[in-house]
Amino acid sequence: MEKHQNGEDSEQLDPSICGYDSLHHLLKDNLKPHHFQEVNRLLTGLNCGKVLETIALPQSATALSAEHGFDLQAFCFHADKEVLREPRIVRVGLVQNSIALPTTAHFVDQKKAIFEKLKPIIDAAGSSGVNILCLQEAWMMPFAFCTREKKWCEFAEPVDGESTKFLQSFAVKYNMVIISSILERDMNHGDVIWNTAVVIGNHGNIIGIHRKNHIPRVGDFNESTYYMEGNTGHPVFETAFGKIAINICYGRHHPLNWLTFGLNGAEIVFNPSATVGELSEPMWPIEARNAAIANSYFVASINRVGTETFPNPFTSGDGKPAHADFGHFYGSSYISAPDASCTPSLSRNRDGLLVTDMDLNLCRQYKDKWGFRMTARYELYAETLARYLKPGFEPQVIRDPLLHKSSS
Amino acid sequence: MEKHQNGEDSEQLDPSICGYDSLHHLLKDNLKPHHFQEVNRLLTGLNCGKVLETIALPQSATALSAEHGFDLQAFCFHADKEVLREPRIVRVGLVQNSIALPTTAHFVDQKKAIFEKLKPIIDAAGSSGVNILCLQEAWMMPFAFCTREKKWCEFAEPVDGESTKFLQSFAVKYNMVIISSILERDMNHGDVIWNTAVVIGNHGNIIGIHRKNHIPRVGDFNESTYYMEGNTGHPVFETAFGKIAINICYGRHHPLNWLTFGLNGAEIVFNPSATVGELSEPMWPIEARNAAIANSYFVASINRVGTETFPNPFTSGDGKPAHADFGHFYGSSYISAPDASCTPSLSRNRDGLLVTDMDLNLCRQYKDKWGFRMTARYELYAETLARYLKPGFEPQVIRDPLLHKSSS
Repeated sequence: MEKHQNGEDSEQLDPSICGYDSLHHLLKDNLKPHHFQEVNRLLTGLNCGKVLETIALPQSATALSAEHGFDLQAFCFHADKEVLREPRIVRVGLVQNSIALPTTAHFVDQKKAIFEKLKPIIDAAGSSGVNILCLQEAWMMPFAFCTREKKWCEFAEPVDGESTKFLQSFAVKYNMVIISSILERDMNHGDVIWNTAVVIGNHGNIIGIHRKNHIPRVGDFNESTYYMEGNTGHPVFETAFGKIAINICYGRHHPLNWLTFGLNGAEIVFNPSATVGELSEPMWPIEARNAAIANSYFVASINRVGTETFPNPFTSGDGKPAHADFGHFYGSSYISAPDASCTPSLSRNRDGLLVTDMDLNLCRQYKDKWGFRMTARYELYAETLARYLKPGFEPQVIRDPLLHKSSS
Repeated sequence: MEKHQNGEDSEQLDPSICGYDSLHHLLKDNLKPHHFQEVNRLLTGLNCGKVLETIALPQSATALSAEHGFDLQAFCFHADKEVLREPRIVRVGLVQNSIALPTTAHFVDQKKAIFEKLKPIIDAAGSSGVNILCLQEAWMMPFAFCTREKKWCEFAEPVDGESTKFLQSFAVKYNMVIISSILERDMNHGDVIWNTAVVIGNHGNIIGIHRKNHIPRVGDFNESTYYMEGNTGHPVFETAFGKIAINICYGRHHPLNWLTFGLNGAEIVFNPSATVGELSEPMWPIEARNAAIANSYFVASINRVGTETFPNPFTSGDGKPAHADFGHFYGSSYISAPDASCTPSLSRNRDGLLVTDMDLNLCRQYKDKWGFRMTARYELYAETLARYLKPGFEPQVIRDPLLHKSSS
C-alpha cells in the first residue's frame, strides 16, 4: 500500500479505511465463489446471466501500473447486435489520484509534481488505446476550498492555461479526447473564478467548456466562497468518439441536472468529483447508477484519493475543534451502464486508472426497452415546475378532514 | 421455506433464487463479523458510526409470524434532537405477499383467500403499533396484466369496494392509516379502469386516492392494455401521522415523479410494486435510495413475492416460446432514509412484514444539511423542459469543428 503523499503513513489512518482495497475485493476474497457470484449479481446488476468481461491491456500499461503502484483495471460492457447499425465501441479511461506534495510546498512545485505523477497514468491510458480520458475534479491542485482562504485562488488558470497545454500534448500523441476539470480564472470577465471542465479534442484542440451547475454549501464543502453556479447550461460535446457531457461533483445529487444532459443527447456523462468518506460514501454507489438507469446513458464516476492536510486549521460549522484536513477522499471510481450494471470500483486508497469498453448502442437499446422517455410526461412536469416557482405556489395536499379528531 | 401457493415447490426454482433468504443474510451468514460490519456500512449507508437499531415487537406479533411463516423484521431510524421541535416518530409497516390460490380458482375464492392470508399479517402490524401500513401493488389479485386477457378486469373494484371495506375495519381497530393499491373501476366515468392507491385514514375514512402516473410498456409489463396514465397529479395526503404520498411501481423509474411528490411536501413516499427478478432486481436497491437522498424524504419500497402461473400461455415480444408465468416476484421490501441509509430487505421468497420507526424530523434536517432544494436551480429546468417540449427543440450540442478530420 502506497504512502500518502502528504507525509502520513496509511497505517495511521482508520483501519476500516485501509484494511481492504475495495468493496469488490473484500467480498471476493472472503466469500465462497458461488456466494460471491450471487452477491455480485445483486450488487453490480449482472442479471440474465450477463458477465462483465475483463480486458487484457498491453504489457506497456501493466508495467507502468506495477512500476508506479497505481491500480489498473479494465472491463467491457456489451450491447446486442443490431441489424441496421454497427456497434459503436468506445474505450473510456478514468484517472483518480492523490496530490503529490504537501500543501505547504511552493504552488509551482505542487502543480508540477501532480503533472509528473499523472504522466505514467496517462501514458498507460494512451498505450491502452483509450479514446476518452477523464481526470478528477480540480485535478491540478489540492482540494483546498474547505479552508476558505483565498490564497488557493492562485491555482486558477485560464481555459487555455498550463494544465490544458499539458494535456493537449497527450491528446495529440494518443488521438485521445481528454476531459480536464480545473479551477478556471475568467480573465475576460473581471477575473472571476469558476469550477470548469475543459474538453480537449483528439487533435489537441479545445472543443469547449462546461462550468459546474450546482455548488455545495455542506460541511467543509462551502465552495461558493470561491465560485458561483455555472453559466454554460448543459452542453453535450460531440467528439470523434461519441456525445459526452460533464456533471461536475455535487451536480450528481441533482436528478434534473442528469436529466438535462440526457435531453441534450449525452451518451456518456462524466462525473469528476472530490468527496470524502464520512460525508458521501453511502451515496456514491447509488446516484450515478440511478442516473444511468433513468437516462439510458453511461455514467463515469471519478473521485480523488487520499487525505489532504492544510497549513492552517479550519472549522466545519459543526461545533467541533478546528482541524487541518477534511477526511479521506475514497477514490472508488467506477462506471455505470444504462442496463443497471456497473463495473467494480477502483481502490479506495490508491491512485488508479479504470479502462472500460462500452458499446454506445446500449443507450438507445435501453431507451427502446424501458421507454422512460416515452412515458416521462414532461409536459406535466414543465407545468408543475413553472407553477412551483411562483411565490404563491400551493402544494397539492389532501388533508384528512377528520384530522382534528386525532389531536383531541 | 414456504411452498409457493400456485403449487410449485420452491425447490423446483432456480437455486440462485432459493438458496438464501436475502442479501443481508447471505452476507451476514458468510462473512466474518468485522468484514460484515464494513460491507454493511458501505451497503446500507450507516456512516459516521451510525447503527440501525432493531425494535423488539410484542409477543403477539412474533407469534403470528411464527404461526403463519411470514418474515417479520423491525428497525428504527433516528434523527438528531432539535431545540424547537419535538421528535415526530412514526411507525411504518410494509406488507409483501404471494397470492393465495392458483389463478385458475374462482375469482371470488382467490380474492377471499388473499384476504384471509393477509389478516394475521395486518393483525401483527396492528398489535405492533404500526401507524401507517402499506400493501403491495394490486394486492387483491394476481398480477395478471402480462396475459393481456380482459377477463382479469373483473377483479377491479370501485374506490369504496370490498377491498377497501376489508381494510377499513383494520384501520379503525388499530387506529392505523392504510394505503391500499387496487385495480380501480371508475363507474362514474364510463367504467374505465385505473391503477389506484386508496388512502384510508386512521378513523376508517377514505382520505383520497392517487392513480399511477407512469404506465410501463416493457417486457411482460404492458399494463397500458388495461389502464392509462393517472389523472390525479401528485397529491400528498396529510394524515394523522405525517404527510405521505404514493409513487406506484413503474413511477419509481421517473426522477421527476419522485421530485414532484417532494415539492408537494411528502415526508414518506410509498412505492407499492410488483416486479420480477430478471427484469428489475439490479435497479431495486438503487432507485428508491436515490429518491430518498435527492428529495430528503423516506421511501418505503414494497414488492410482491412468488411466481404466478396463468392458465393460458402468453408471449413476451422477445421471440421466445409462449410461457405461463413471468418470473419470480422477489419481495425484498425495504425502507430508505434521507441520510442515504436503509434497512435490510425482507425475504426474497416469503411473505413478510417490515416495521420501521422513523423520526420525520430527519427530512428537514437533511434539507438543511445538504441544501438540495436551495441549490436546485428549478428555474433553469422549468425553462429547459418548456423548451424541450416544443417540436423545434434543438439540443445544446457543441460539435468538435475538427470532427470531419477524424473520419478521414
